[in-house]
Amino acid sequence: MKSFIEYGPECEFPLENLPYGIFSTTDNPKPRPGVAIGDQVLDLGVIKSLFCGPLMSKSSHVFDEESLNGLMSLGKSAWLECRETLQKVLSASESVLRDSPLRHTAFVPSSKCRMHLPAKIGDYTDFYSSIDHATNVGTMFRGKDNALMPNWKYLPVGYHGRASSIVVSGTPIRRPTGQSCPVDDKPPIFGPCKLLDFELEMAFLVGTGNQFGSPIPISEAQDHIFGCVLMNDWSARDIQKWEYVPLGPFLAKNFGTTISPWVVTLAALEPFLQPNYNQDPKPFPYLVHDDPFTFDIPLTVSIKPETSPEETTVCKSNFKFMYWTMKQQLAHHTITGCNTNPGDLLASGTISGPSEDSFGSMLELSWRGSKPIPMSDGSTRTFLKDGDEVVIRGAAQGNGYKVGFGKCSGVVLPAISH
Amino acid sequence: MKSFIEYGPECEFPLENLPYGIFSTTDNPKPRPGVAIGDQVLDLGVIKSLFCGPLMSKSSHVFDEESLNGLMSLGKSAWLECRETLQKVLSASESVLRDSPLRHTAFVPSSKCRMHLPAKIGDYTDFYSSIDHATNVGTMFRGKDNALMPNWKYLPVGYHGRASSIVVSGTPIRRPTGQSCPVDDKPPIFGPCKLLDFELEMAFLVGTGNQFGSPIPISEAQDHIFGCVLMNDWSARDIQKWEYVPLGPFLAKNFGTTISPWVVTLAALEPFLQPNYNQDPKPFPYLVHDDPFTFDIPLTVSIKPETSPEETTVCKSNFKFMYWTMKQQLAHHTITGCNTNPGDLLASGTISGPSEDSFGSMLELSWRGSKPIPMSDGSTRTFLKDGDEVVIRGAAQGNGYKVGFGKCSGVVLPAISH
Repeated sequence: MKSFIEYGPECEFPLENLPYGIFSTTDNPKPRPGVAIGDQVLDLGVIKSLFCGPLMSKSSHVFDEESLNGLMSLGKSAWLECRETLQKVLSASESVLRDSPLRHTAFVPSSKCRMHLPAKIGDYTDFYSSIDHATNVGTMFRGKDNALMPNWKYLPVGYHGRASSIVVSGTPIRRPTGQSCPVDDKPPIFGPCKLLDFELEMAFLVGTGNQFGSPIPISEAQDHIFGCVLMNDWSARDIQKWEYVPLGPFLAKNFGTTISPWVVTLAALEPFLQPNYNQDPKPFPYLVHDDPFTFDIPLTVSIKPETSPEETTVCKSNFKFMYWTMKQQLAHHTITGCNTNPGDLLASGTISGPSEDSFGSMLELSWRGSKPIPMSDGSTRTFLKDGDEVVIRGAAQGNGYKVGFGKCSGVVLPAISH
Repeated sequence: MKSFIEYGPECEFPLENLPYGIFSTTDNPKPRPGVAIGDQVLDLGVIKSLFCGPLMSKSSHVFDEESLNGLMSLGKSAWLECRETLQKVLSASESVLRDSPLRHTAFVPSSKCRMHLPAKIGDYTDFYSSIDHATNVGTMFRGKDNALMPNWKYLPVGYHGRASSIVVSGTPIRRPTGQSCPVDDKPPIFGPCKLLDFELEMAFLVGTGNQFGSPIPISEAQDHIFGCVLMNDWSARDIQKWEYVPLGPFLAKNFGTTISPWVVTLAALEPFLQPNYNQDPKPFPYLVHDDPFTFDIPLTVSIKPETSPEETTVCKSNFKFMYWTMKQQLAHHTITGCNTNPGDLLASGTISGPSEDSFGSMLELSWRGSKPIPMSDGSTRTFLKDGDEVVIRGAAQGNGYKVGFGKCSGVVLPAISH
């Protein structure tokens, strides 16, 4: 598979990927849908006349919208037709775009693009589906014997998050201020968060939703999933510990959640399917599917201190470490009849693997602050410092090509003084 | 204060109230903003030329929108100007609307209006701010001595809820299906919720929001609040008990949340201010305000069994029982920099008072099912049965007039068979 746009084997955006995003440029500040190919972004509004298939020819107006919600709401058949058209018109052997005058206006160098949130996210849900993460955190707070709560292996534990404060990669994150209680049984204190953390996550965007009162059967769940992004679920551990009983995390998570600008479609991720986690006990039927829906996507987290020219990779994990699949998450979420909409975001929870260098948060990497993590500039970290840039990357390795997400990053700004 | 639209002293929608809602009619199915007055709804789009004030004359296009978000985003000065104009043009002594040909098209009988959700709700947050409710629930599950968690008196505990499944009064609610664990240490079971409950709540709609990273100071919080609605936070107690550890309620709450169609503005509620709860310990400065922001609004909950012609009032509570004020809730919510938007909904949590007949949920009224509640048809309830209609009402008593919310109701449908 070869495109007339050139790139090397390490490029995250080959013809096999074709992730969607929303971009704007200095010349044209209107946010609009694009597809990443090599180091270029293809402006879909410019080439909408090339979508000649039976579904997309009627719906190419979605490429004039300021979010991907319109495209997502068209459904799986349209997404596949769209991908087929794009792979065709971008291929080296196809002249329709390659030799067209359109070509001059259709491509924008990625370096000149400002990326925006890919979707209007109506509702955001965060799961807790990595068994190693749940075990690590449980062990720290309740001891090894009670690490996993009794419900954990029966259902994908999750909670509703804050949609308004989801931001696109590159948006600085202000260190939050709030209450914490450093000494049990003493009164709490108020001030800037002292235990600021990242959480390495992936998340999927709902394409087509479901009606209020009508659950999505697990056999149909994958047809509702448009694609995936990388996510950093920034967390204020000290605020969380004080506030979260009994109704769950609130302010500890709502000061910012960063996602990657590029949405990699399920079709692009299909080559990286691998067997699911062996679930014991076997879940209830509404959560059972036999087909593989676990994805081999290596993930890394790096920290770049403000004064250092270099990043230090602090975590090497993989999306394949998930215990619960995205299909199980969506079927569970809607079993009560809860309705979902195009653009809803459902996140994995922190993705930790079994080895110590695969833990997906500073809480685990530094084991509650007891093990400082060395940076390449000689400093150490237990939690994040002001000025630190946290960079999440993810790319699946195909046969001679990669399917990547671009980076998901954010710099920590100092707290506001109160 | 007298309008040319006639109504009696028991009417919930006098000239002193003027709540906003979104309605449509058979003749004109487009949802549009209206104001309730007597037994009529005033179609604001029809009379938009009458808004001659400096702010609303430029912004009367908000009355052509399908939600109140546009009006809400205009800010407090515009809301007050709008109210002043409406009180003037509706008054008995003012001829501009009374004697205008517009009058024939501007009013629709309420009985002919279909009501819609008043706002596009981007994010929904539920607090837990009634001390009697928190004490009751805490006593049931942890005993009297540990009823309130250590954080409860230091901050308004809250959690993010599901916005997509908020529905307007009159929408039937399907009994959810899910996992529960009736016997501790035994495996869970799957099936229809057996402990379906209501929660008597009130909620406020954010008018103007705040930017990402910029908290709302408590001194400015009330200028961001547009108005209030009644709310039923339907709850599946058996699902909740099994799923909620450690990240809070999820499926137990996301199968439907009902709000009243009419939004009563803060200006209309001002006459019902009364002193705040005496908070001890004194909260941190970011949560302190000395002006009263507690409202005397009597509330009731009734149940009408499917086969009974009569409702039975099971709860008489009052919004004045809140420990934390709406200003404190909003200041707390944003102290981390979390951004809010017009149309965001922030709910009180169950509003229970000190006496047994003021408890705001069946969980408390039946004390975990141990005290059956008699219905007027001779049946009893510990939790809700299929076919039950739950009706929440609320109206403040002024000097010779009432300020009410209309009803907030929903019928329980049987579970889907799986």
